[in-house]
Amino acid sequence: MRKAYHEELTALSDGLVEMARLAGSAIGRASTALLDADLQVAEGVIAADVKIDDLQRDLEDRAIALLARQQPVATDLRTVVASLRMSADLERCGDLARHVAQLARLRYPEHVVPDDLHRTVLEMGQLAQRLMAQTAEVLLTKDVDAALQLEQDDDRMDELHRMIFPHLMDDRWQHGVETAVDVTLVGRYYERFADHAVSVARRMVYLVTGEYADEYADERRPDP
Amino acid sequence: MRKAYHEELTALSDGLVEMARLAGSAIGRASTALLDADLQVAEGVIAADVKIDDLQRDLEDRAIALLARQQPVATDLRTVVASLRMSADLERCGDLARHVAQLARLRYPEHVVPDDLHRTVLEMGQLAQRLMAQTAEVLLTKDVDAALQLEQDDDRMDELHRMIFPHLMDDRWQHGVETAVDVTLVGRYYERFADHAVSVARRMVYLVTGEYADEYADERRPDP
Repeated sequence: MRKAYHEELTALSDGLVEMARLAGSAIGRASTALLDADLQVAEGVIAADVKIDDLQRDLEDRAIALLARQQPVATDLRTVVASLRMSADLERCGDLARHVAQLARLRYPEHVVPDDLHRTVLEMGQLAQRLMAQTAEVLLTKDVDAALQLEQDDDRMDELHRMIFPHLMDDRWQHGVETAVDVTLVGRYYERFADHAVSVARRMVYLVTGEYADEYADERRPDP
Repeated sequence: MRKAYHEELTALSDGLVEMARLAGSAIGRASTALLDADLQVAEGVIAADVKIDDLQRDLEDRAIALLARQQPVATDLRTVVASLRMSADLERCGDLARHVAQLARLRYPEHVVPDDLHRTVLEMGQLAQRLMAQTAEVLLTKDVDAALQLEQDDDRMDELHRMIFPHLMDDRWQHGVETAVDVTLVGRYYERFADHAVSVARRMVYLVTGEYADEYADERRPDP
């Protein structure tokens, strides 16, 4: 019985890691589809999102079965509940990657992102993929420092996101309103993707330390 | 003991209804702030979002305490788990209302929405508020028909959202890129708000019928 119990808990954790890996792969490929205007890659990302959705449904069913059969308490209970919430974040990341791919498909064979924003969007895409790889690692290792680091790395995403708007507002903007709207949405998708990754990391900090991430980070900061 | 148990379950449900009411009020007032460029109302919405966040944290703590103490099974267990997920949706609705208000504050004393889109955005705001009122009712009554109706009403939101883009893309668009970007984000905030309301309703259908909302609706549809 105890063996089955720990196997079930491990299966939940494995499911989350798998979801994070798929979401990371999805955002990486969606960025390729977007920046290269590659229809085939875009279609692949869109089709593959079902797999992440299925994993989430499956994980939720298994979490409920575990709660019913094993009636965990204390840390184990918090872990199961946190898994439910983290799986929702990861499922949403899959959706956001799909949105990026759908935009690439919508404008194909045109490019969504104009040349002068290519570098910024490329960095956003790479950062999103990296943040999700860190998330997978945090889920695997339960490493609090890595989780807090992830939050810091997300600051760069916010910075990149903020860098887009002055471009769009500049009088020299030559690409019309449609492109401005597309780029606005792309920026928002990446930023939300990163937020969900941070949300998973924060839950892990809470699970491991029993404190919310900001409190925990504050306490460890040396006095000025 | 049993009495306490049912009181605890009811308290979860009451918490969700309260969150839905606050989110509905928030989106209503955020729309006012947006369309009237009313800074004071905007500030009120932004400040009040903390209350929704606190309710969610509280609800989550109480759900976990209930799981640990009462170890519910079957329907009760699914209800508690669904409460966790629904509270996350409602918390996000609060965030989205805050985003609308923050945009109003950012552009104050200017209006975010140009006159020719005023009517569309007004309808989106009213519809969002109405959808959330229906959500509160569904949470209170567990009425499956009302939940399915909510999903249909959301179709109108998608329609309104789609109506915005041709405006922005029109060569006669006179309001510049900044306004186009703002309106794009506003449209997305309302659409996401409605999606989260639908998500809560779908979970209620699943809780009551044991079937996912689309399956349930399909079965009840007469053969062609």
